[in-house]
Amino acid sequence: MNFEDYFPIWDKLTTEQQNMLTSAATLRTVPKGTVLHNGSENCTGLLLICSGQLRAYILSEEGREITLYRLFEMDICLFSASCIMNSIQFDICIEAEKDSEFWLIPADVYKKIMENSAAAANYTNEIMAARFSEVMWLIEQIMWKSVDKRLASFLLEESALEGTGSLKLTHETIANHLGTAREVITRMLHYFQREGIVKLARGTIEITDAKKLTRLLDT
Amino acid sequence: MNFEDYFPIWDKLTTEQQNMLTSAATLRTVPKGTVLHNGSENCTGLLLICSGQLRAYILSEEGREITLYRLFEMDICLFSASCIMNSIQFDICIEAEKDSEFWLIPADVYKKIMENSAAAANYTNEIMAARFSEVMWLIEQIMWKSVDKRLASFLLEESALEGTGSLKLTHETIANHLGTAREVITRMLHYFQREGIVKLARGTIEITDAKKLTRLLDT
Repeated sequence: MNFEDYFPIWDKLTTEQQNMLTSAATLRTVPKGTVLHNGSENCTGLLLICSGQLRAYILSEEGREITLYRLFEMDICLFSASCIMNSIQFDICIEAEKDSEFWLIPADVYKKIMENSAAAANYTNEIMAARFSEVMWLIEQIMWKSVDKRLASFLLEESALEGTGSLKLTHETIANHLGTAREVITRMLHYFQREGIVKLARGTIEITDAKKLTRLLDT
Repeated sequence: MNFEDYFPIWDKLTTEQQNMLTSAATLRTVPKGTVLHNGSENCTGLLLICSGQLRAYILSEEGREITLYRLFEMDICLFSASCIMNSIQFDICIEAEKDSEFWLIPADVYKKIMENSAAAANYTNEIMAARFSEVMWLIEQIMWKSVDKRLASFLLEESALEGTGSLKLTHETIANHLGTAREVITRMLHYFQREGIVKLARGTIEITDAKKLTRLLDT
């Protein structure tokens, strides 16, 4: 449970920067359901996840939610420390979806390191680009939600036809059925898996939450 | 029209880095309507805008578009050089919305500078965070589009009531009418202005495209 084993660019930092991090970072444990960061609050700090699962989401004035992405072991949550950059002009909420353990890195310490280390700044760029990519994918889903709906109804149909929730289907076959690319189906199935809707194994797609799958059709 | 006058962190680069940039960057002029970058194409390079206006958008398989954001003089277009970061896993299109002049910076040159300069990497972080913020705002609009619709119908109503397209209204007044914050209205009005729907002046909102405003109600 050493900090340096979890922090990806540890070796690219100076000894001084390493010491700054280890002396400032604190290990925290939170139970499932804990809201770790609330959009409107102050700069919580970066979260470097040791175990568990976090969910990043936004909240409307009326209390509606959208999940933006999830964070797992070894991921870093950047936007809980939005004060490290002036141009981050949006607020997100972070919740522990499972019992979670993480290192909390104070925003000012990270900012100072980033200002002086090209490695840390570039690493931060990559984190942000990864999250940006997830959000762009979400936008496409929201705007052109044909694929997820079409995949959902296809899976339900097949399941009804075969009389089983465990479907022997390749991604290629489904893609051909839906007139789309295999990659699109693979990506969507992995999304379904992260959402707990299906479980993927070699050559098999097991529907684990048919209710949630059906609900996709109504959205 | 010197490159160094347009490149924001010029003074923070080494002479060698400055020379790399000036010898690699080329000044380009394109007429309105030119597609400068097409999602599926290769890494076009960074665009540093001298004059004109660019539009970043995504395109569905069916050819539907969504405008993500616009870029103006002194802005840098980063995602036309998505190959500078591994984690940029999405494609956007860039189009010149007006006759435009810009410096084209080859992606490999910028990447090399960014790898060695914390200043350049942090600057890139800020650019990305700014675009991310615009996209997050867009998501909120898409998901919870109450405000734009409500503002649109409010403006149309007022215009019909007053018998003029030039409305004497403060943002505060409108916010009160719609039960939202003044900042929300100001932001939305600026968005309307960028879309060519209204023109803002001190104490006045002029509807310049009533058709487009009406169309907002149908979406």
